[in-house]
Amino acid sequence: LSRPAIHIGPSDNDGLTAAVRAGGGEPAPLDAANALVWHGGATDFPELPASVRWVQLPAAGVETWMELVRGAPEVTFTSAAGAYATDVAEHALALLLAGVRGFARYARADRWDPVDDRLLEGSTVAVVGAGGIGQAFIERAAPLDVELVAITRSGRDVPGAHRSLAVDRLPEVWASADHFVICAPATDATRHLVGSEQLAQMQPHSWIVNIARGSLIDTDALVEALQAERIGGAGLDVTDPEPLPDGHPLWASPRAIITPHVANPPSAQWRKLAERVQENVARFAAGERLIAPVEQDRGY
Amino acid sequence: LSRPAIHIGPSDNDGLTAAVRAGGGEPAPLDAANALVWHGGATDFPELPASVRWVQLPAAGVETWMELVRGAPEVTFTSAAGAYATDVAEHALALLLAGVRGFARYARADRWDPVDDRLLEGSTVAVVGAGGIGQAFIERAAPLDVELVAITRSGRDVPGAHRSLAVDRLPEVWASADHFVICAPATDATRHLVGSEQLAQMQPHSWIVNIARGSLIDTDALVEALQAERIGGAGLDVTDPEPLPDGHPLWASPRAIITPHVANPPSAQWRKLAERVQENVARFAAGERLIAPVEQDRGY
Repeated sequence: LSRPAIHIGPSDNDGLTAAVRAGGGEPAPLDAANALVWHGGATDFPELPASVRWVQLPAAGVETWMELVRGAPEVTFTSAAGAYATDVAEHALALLLAGVRGFARYARADRWDPVDDRLLEGSTVAVVGAGGIGQAFIERAAPLDVELVAITRSGRDVPGAHRSLAVDRLPEVWASADHFVICAPATDATRHLVGSEQLAQMQPHSWIVNIARGSLIDTDALVEALQAERIGGAGLDVTDPEPLPDGHPLWASPRAIITPHVANPPSAQWRKLAERVQENVARFAAGERLIAPVEQDRGY
Repeated sequence: LSRPAIHIGPSDNDGLTAAVRAGGGEPAPLDAANALVWHGGATDFPELPASVRWVQLPAAGVETWMELVRGAPEVTFTSAAGAYATDVAEHALALLLAGVRGFARYARADRWDPVDDRLLEGSTVAVVGAGGIGQAFIERAAPLDVELVAITRSGRDVPGAHRSLAVDRLPEVWASADHFVICAPATDATRHLVGSEQLAQMQPHSWIVNIARGSLIDTDALVEALQAERIGGAGLDVTDPEPLPDGHPLWASPRAIITPHVANPPSAQWRKLAERVQENVARFAAGERLIAPVEQDRGY
């Protein structure tokens, strides 16, 4: 395949077309395509012709696509995992700093009312899940003089972390770290990773940041912990349910900062997706290993 | 002086007493003191006996003390400049990230309403004044993939900055940088450093962060620029007037994040002042050069 035929769907897109061409591919109708670059959702996904051997998905977290992936075992699916890592890590750092520094109160205030908040400096931050986002977060938090604890499935040494622990050590982390940044994929194993039991072990000043998926936190348990002032607060870019409905108690909590799934804002997302598409098309054309293949067994 | 006699005023303080002792000094009454560690304000400052040769002030910015300093030219005054630099730089980064990431809107929202905000990543950040705070800010912003421009009086090369410019280059910086972090001392020369002319040159997405002193920004001009949506917004830990009075238009601006002079919160301030006192007492006892002597001619 010197210039593989790549279909872009569900609609034309100038940025992705340019990326396909720059990567050495040729935009093509679906029924003539060797690969599909998909920038739509999971529900309107097309039936794939036999010629399609690779599908590039637009999302970093692909839990809604796993049924499709498992239904087409002869096709390689790649996610956009890692493509948006620095965007999301930047947002996670913004939420953590804003939370610890009292912005949930200050941003809503209409009078001068200083509080003796803690610094982030000197605290211990647990990074739960250290894939692309967790790794990028660790790099960004490094100069802030915090102790970084990385938690992964395997407990492998995570570059830049002061301690690397396996997920079975999480129970001791909830009680000992000051703050928590949740960057783990959404799988059956990570659903309600943070529930009432975990929240009860945290410290009264602890902030928890979630930029992964809403399902990783038990929302009802979180609302209860915030209302009882048992933790410092929560900075959430993802929620369960999502979108967070009007009137939900999280909106009114003086201990919550909610951003509406904007860690990776649309214009940045299109730009970074195009970069990933160009790189993966070039690899596909060269017969090389693609970036971020979805593994059916682990679910991401 | 093997153990210099150090008075602590205007009142006893356990942390400072321990710091004086740990530095090799001995707490003493003012009329028997070789030095004074002052943790009060400028208005209740005592008359100094001739035995006092050094005064440690509690503030990093000493503009309100300059008359006192100039009235006692035989006494060395040291400020706390640099002691709180990492605290304040952390807060500056929090304000910048929060501003750019739309938290002024999101923190006040009660419904899911995503906006396509820019990243901080990829932008140019001008650090106006690169003393201890500016330097600490540059270190903290380094991994965020921003272009850092440091502006100092002399234009000396600032470590970590991608470009170092002298203050006479500021006019081109207002028009070219994306965001501005004001870390310059308050002097006659820096009053209203940012006024309507400078604000008019900034870009519609530009955020300006002030963690220095309120007087560096012309508040009325800023309010006008925010109301006219001519800049992205302002993150202010210091204001003019300060405290910002109830009903001031900045409180209601959807483009402002105001924190009430808490970049260096009280408990952190006491801890870091004690560290500085210990170090300077040890230097005083050893006859070494003190940290952060106030220079009468430059005014800080």
